[in-house]
This record gives sequence, C-alpha cells and structure tokens, in this order.
Amino acid sequence: MRAVDIIIDKRNGKELSREALRFLIQGYVAGEIPDYQIAAWAMAVFFQGMSPKEIAVLTEVMLRSGKSMDLSGIAGPFVDKHSTGGVGDKTSLIVAPLIASLGIKDPMMSGRALGHTGGTLDKLEAIPGYRTALEAQEFREILGKTGYAMTGQTKDMVPADRLLYALRDVSGTVESIPLITASILAKKVAAGADALVLDVKYGSGAFMKDPEEAEKLARSLVNTGAALGRQIIALITDMDEPLGNMVGNFLEIEESLDCLEGKGPRDLMEVSLELAARMAVLGAKAADAREGRRICEAALASGKPRRLFLENIRDQGGDPKEVLEMRGKYRSSYSAEIRASRGSYISRIDAGKVGHAGILLGVGRNRTEDPVSPTAGVQFHKKRGDRIDPGDPIMTLWAADEASLAGAIPQLEGAVEYAEIPPAPRTLVLQEITRETSGALPGANEAG
Amino acid sequence: MRAVDIIIDKRNGKELSREALRFLIQGYVAGEIPDYQIAAWAMAVFFQGMSPKEIAVLTEVMLRSGKSMDLSGIAGPFVDKHSTGGVGDKTSLIVAPLIASLGIKDPMMSGRALGHTGGTLDKLEAIPGYRTALEAQEFREILGKTGYAMTGQTKDMVPADRLLYALRDVSGTVESIPLITASILAKKVAAGADALVLDVKYGSGAFMKDPEEAEKLARSLVNTGAALGRQIIALITDMDEPLGNMVGNFLEIEESLDCLEGKGPRDLMEVSLELAARMAVLGAKAADAREGRRICEAALASGKPRRLFLENIRDQGGDPKEVLEMRGKYRSSYSAEIRASRGSYISRIDAGKVGHAGILLGVGRNRTEDPVSPTAGVQFHKKRGDRIDPGDPIMTLWAADEASLAGAIPQLEGAVEYAEIPPAPRTLVLQEITRETSGALPGANEAG
Repeated sequence: MRAVDIIIDKRNGKELSREALRFLIQGYVAGEIPDYQIAAWAMAVFFQGMSPKEIAVLTEVMLRSGKSMDLSGIAGPFVDKHSTGGVGDKTSLIVAPLIASLGIKDPMMSGRALGHTGGTLDKLEAIPGYRTALEAQEFREILGKTGYAMTGQTKDMVPADRLLYALRDVSGTVESIPLITASILAKKVAAGADALVLDVKYGSGAFMKDPEEAEKLARSLVNTGAALGRQIIALITDMDEPLGNMVGNFLEIEESLDCLEGKGPRDLMEVSLELAARMAVLGAKAADAREGRRICEAALASGKPRRLFLENIRDQGGDPKEVLEMRGKYRSSYSAEIRASRGSYISRIDAGKVGHAGILLGVGRNRTEDPVSPTAGVQFHKKRGDRIDPGDPIMTLWAADEASLAGAIPQLEGAVEYAEIPPAPRTLVLQEITRETSGALPGANEAG
Repeated sequence: MRAVDIIIDKRNGKELSREALRFLIQGYVAGEIPDYQIAAWAMAVFFQGMSPKEIAVLTEVMLRSGKSMDLSGIAGPFVDKHSTGGVGDKTSLIVAPLIASLGIKDPMMSGRALGHTGGTLDKLEAIPGYRTALEAQEFREILGKTGYAMTGQTKDMVPADRLLYALRDVSGTVESIPLITASILAKKVAAGADALVLDVKYGSGAFMKDPEEAEKLARSLVNTGAALGRQIIALITDMDEPLGNMVGNFLEIEESLDCLEGKGPRDLMEVSLELAARMAVLGAKAADAREGRRICEAALASGKPRRLFLENIRDQGGDPKEVLEMRGKYRSSYSAEIRASRGSYISRIDAGKVGHAGILLGVGRNRTEDPVSPTAGVQFHKKRGDRIDPGDPIMTLWAADEASLAGAIPQLEGAVEYAEIPPAPRTLVLQEITRETSGALPGANEAG
C-alpha cells in the first residue's frame, strides 16, 4: 500500500477502505507518512468529500490513535455537549452543572480560544487557581463526585487529531465537513461521552456562515455518531450576534453565574435551556425536549446547579468565595464606553466583528501560543432590537493597555448597525437534527 | 502575505496574482514555504485549474527560479521539440540532426525514463562514453558547431520545477494541465528555445489516455507559449502502440540511425517528419508544413542528418565507428522470441503494457534513482495490421537475467491482441494545434 495511491483514489472520487484510512492515519501518527502527503489528501477530501461510512471509519481510526478516558466504576449516563464555536458562547459553563444536578455525568473535554471564537478552557482559567490540565484519575474523581469535570485534550488522547488539526490550519483544509466531523467526534468519544448534544452555530460569528452549511455539518455529525453507536442530537443555533451580554474570559464566568442564579440574559438562557433539555433526554431523565426543558427550569430554580458550579471551582483548584467577591470588579485597567450618537434601534451587532475586536482586547488569540487576558472584554448594555436614545451607553469595554483599547473602539463601533424601525425577530434555535427526523422547531424561542 | 491564504484563494477558485505566485514559488525554492503547503496548493490547482494568465505567470516565475542557458553569440534560430512521453518514442534523436542539417539550432534539454515511458538521456547514455551532463560552455560549443546538443537539466536550471515535480509525484498531483504546462515550458524556455514543436501523445502508452485530454494540454501549451512570446505548434499523435519496432536504449539508437539512413519503420518516419516539418516552419526555413516536409525529406536523402548524428556522438564523448559496429550486436545475454500460436491479424500492440514490461526488462525504471540497462529491450517483427501465420515470430526480447526475461514474457504476450480481420487504420497525427487555428490534418498520414 502506498500513500500516493490512496491520495489519487480520493482525488478521483473513490471511497477509501478501512485499511487505506488506517494505513494513512497510523502512518502519519507514527511519522512514516509525511505532512505533504496528508495535506494533499486533506485537500482532495475537501473537494471530493467522504461517504458516511468513510467518515465513521476515519473517526474510529483517529480515536484509536491514542488513549480514551476510562470511566469504568463511575455511574453514568455520560452525556456531553459540544459547540462549533462562537462569540460570547458560555453555554458549556451553564449546562454542565445544570445536567449534573439531574444526575447525568458530563465528562467535558474543551478547547481554547482561536481566531474570533472563545474557548471554555481560557474562561475557566480566568478563575485564579483553576486547573484545566487534570490527570485522568483526578478527572474521574471530580466527575464521580460533583457530576462534571472540565479538562483539556491531553497529549496521549487522539494524537491523530492534534496533528491533523494543526496541519489543516496551515494547509487551507479546515472547512471540510468530513474532517470537522471526525475531529469533533473522535475527541468527544475519547473523553467518554455515550451521547452528545451538538450546538452547530451559523452566522457571522460562527464557523459556518449560513444555515445550509450548518445543517450539512449537523447531519454529518448525527449520522457518524449513529454509525459509532453514539446517540447524537444537533441543534442549529444563531451566532449572528454575540450570545448573552458579556464577551471576555472572567466576564463570561460571571454571566454563567448570573444564568445559574436565574438572572441571565434571555438569549443565553434560551439556548442553554434548549441544549440542556436535549441532554436530559439523551440521559434518559426526560421523555422529550419539552419535559427536559421543564425539569431543567425546575433544577435551576432549586439552586443546585449553582452549588455544583461553585463546588467544581473548588474541586479544580479555585476559591468559590473569591469568585463571588470578584464579580463586577475583576476588570482590566483601561476602560471605555461606546454611546449612541442618535436615537433609533439597534438592528444588528455583528458577532464576527465583535470576535475580531476581542482578539485586539486580549479576549482571544490569533495563534495557539499567544496568551489571553482574564480581565479584558466587552459588556453590552443594548442588543439587537433595543430602542436607543442619543447618549445611551451601548457597551463598555476593558483592555490591558491604551493601544488595544484605542484599536478595538472603532472595530466595535463598526460592529453595531442601526435602523429607524425595530428589526424582525431572529430565531435562536433554528432546527433540530436527529437521526430519524429533522425540522424547524415550533416558534416561541425567538429573540430580538 | 501568507501561504495559507493563497492556498485558500486557489481552493475557492480565485485567480492568483503575480505577487502571490511569486511569493509561493520563490518561498518554496528558498525553503521558507514548506512542502505540505505546496502539496495542498497543487491539489487545489488540480481541482480548480488556472487561468491562461496564471499559467503564464507561474511558468515565468518558475523559469526565473534559476539560470537560463545563455546562447548569445550563436546564430539562431533556436527551435526545440518536446514530447509528453511514450514507448519507443525516439523522434528527438531523429529530428534534432535533421533540422540541424537545415541550419536550425536545437538546444535540446531532455529527461530520463520514468515509469513506462522512455527517456532520451538514457538512450544516449547507452552509447559507450556519451556524456549528457554538459557544462554550459561545452553545450554552447557543440550547439554552435554541429547545430544541436543534448543535455540534461542542470541543478541550477529551473530548481522550482525540480522541487515541484518531485513533490507532485508523491502527492498525487501530477495530472494537472496547468502544472504540466508550466513544468514543460519553463524547462524548454530556460534551455534557450525561441520556438517549440510539442508532440502531445495520447493512448495507452501516453500520459493522456484520450485525445480530448491531449487537446486540452496542447491548447494550454500553445496559449501559454504565446503569452511568453514563444511560437509553439502542437501535434496530437497516437501512442496506442509503440512507435517504431524497437523499444530499448541502444536498440532505439540503432533505429534512429535506420531512420536517418532512410530505412526506418513507416510510423516512426511519419511522426518524425511531421514534427520536423513544423520545426522547419518555426525556424523560417519553410512557408508551411507541406514545404517543411518536402525539405526534410530532401535533407534526409542527402545523408547530412546522419553525418551530424555521428558528429554529435563524437562531440559528446562517444565513438561513431564503434556505434556502427555495435549495430545488431549490442544486446543483453538472455533472449527469447514470442511467436504466433495461430493464424490471424494483429489488431493491437498495447503500448502501455509494452512500457511496463520494459521496466521489468531494464529499459525503464520505477524510481528515478534506479539504473537502466543499455542493452535490454524488445524488437517487434510484426505490428498492428500485420497478417500472421502460426509460428511467425512477433517479437524478440533481451534481458540481463533469466528472471527478468521470464517475468516480461507473459506481460508482452498479454500486450498483443488478435483479430480475424485486419483492423481499421489508425491516424498517427490526429490534430495540429496552433495559436490561431486547429483542425484535423488532411488524411494520408495513416499507419497500420
């Protein structure tokens, strides 16, 4: 078997066999197949796609390139959530303690901010002392005790994905649905999830710019999950404006706590509850999403998710009391306010532009090796659909230095669009994709 | 400028600017842009193609990656010929002395056998003492004196092509018309050709399997040549059966000499004369191909091309007298004959299969670093359209050892197809492609 023949087969549109995919991925991880052959193959996959069977095999082969988390001895069910990435998306921080309070375990393996999208690990590390690089034994203990644990991808888990992801990033092959599918599922299955709710976002702040592309990815994820014996539900959700009012690392910890106290912003609460409702269904705590939502709302009202959130902070090295005291105060030194110059309505806050301004402020990063700031960020006082009068504050921003602040202000000003009349409402959760069915959800869950 | 953005632009079907192509190729040659980015880009080019302008710019940028041959002080015109590769194709050895006898200079830079196709340099090196790695000064002297000189690509000529060609070979991106066009023309222009006749072959023994693909490549070559200020004529010729009766390194030297003595096989003479006729036109020695052909036939009859052929052998280190004495004798030790088992007609001799058997015999090679044999090969006694009786010899083969011989026999037997009735004649020169016009040639040039 020669790598070049496998590349040519894929280039010519053939379905690759299990043996061919195993040869390619194992050879790559072993250093026997060079980067340039994998890059050419990835570009051929970009153009020719992969069959559902190929995607499932690729996921399996990647999964087996390293170790999986051993969760034996811990009572399940194990249900996780994954988002394709957005701006202000802190739903992981909310749904993990929420479903843990229902008796479902969430073994969550998260990522870091890259480009305009935020990363759960960076948000958690904004909490002084919080450790995200847990040893397997510690991860299991915290998961068993509190019901959820948060960690990053370790070096020996899915090494094929680490290598392939880095190569795709520099070879122009990131935007391939089969490769994205295998990358997400190999990691999530390796972390121990039996079932998974996927938040596939679309819009200016998302990886997929339009709902059609998001739907394709969602279907690929759901079908591949089924082929691997994992139950998956995908929701296609709006990421045209930032989710919630806070964009920043510690800022988003604060806003998650607001949600767990029942005083979170409406859009963030809505998406979090819709995701958690499906996790409740997959964890067999509810018969359908409607019942799942009802029990999630009841759980929130009980205050238990908030207690688990604070307990997890302690479990992973932080001080819950300190976090509560830092609320509203832990901010970068340089601050500015952007105010309305005239009376009208806000018709749009462009999530993509906010995300890019976030890189300048220190919320996100351009390269994986760059540091981020815990205390920089943006707080929105007005969002899409809000009426504004001249002089009303629209947002407050914080940065580590004068130059970053000065650079971000015009970018953030440019992210806000105005109209004389209120904009039509946007649907937050556009569609639910399951193995059997799919369709637009009944109304009600609209924002704006 | 970042390589990954250039890859993504090409992947998304954009036309790359001169600056982008220069950045990519110069960076690659300088070792600043890694193989894996160029491999991904080449695969994107395979799928998205390139505009005529992009191909011309790529050719120029590649050409300028190294030194060009300096032919100043030598009287032109400089006209070269290039073939896309075939089996038994020794036309270079025939047309170079033929057009040199007309007063046209041919600065010929040739390649080596690879896969099932033969290489002019390997054939010339079958002549004891013949040197194909000429220094620039020696190349100029021989070209000026005898009218043609034969050399290989030196390390400092078109290094971008050397690197890119090797990378394409292992990344499944060989079959890309824009990349093939730039590779051929950059080398030919670097060697000093003002005008060029291209022999674009199609059929089982050619790179392009069907005439439509060959026509696309021919048009790309002609148009790109025009954009670079080089006159180009392309002929699309048949490579479904081996050209001539000899396939082997010294065997093909002998058959070239036969042609220069007016006793070559009909198909090989026909293609050689049609190519030489166009070279005469491009060298302003004839008004049209008909006149070109007439003066080429007259030149052959004069015996001058044969004298120049022997003079070139002496110029480049061989002994013409020795070559003439070796005719019919310089053969590998192990020999066999394949005979007809029944009476019928030969309907086809599959050039591709003959070429692959040639690798086993030692005529060709699978990897550039493998050696070839000067004395191995096949001589056909019968070809397409010939009537055969049981026991008639169809071909004789020679190999360096028993095992190669035993392996090649069934392959060569499998290359011969039979029919009860004579096959319809095949057109040897299917089409002429020039910048302005193209069309099927008037009949007459048919074989078999």
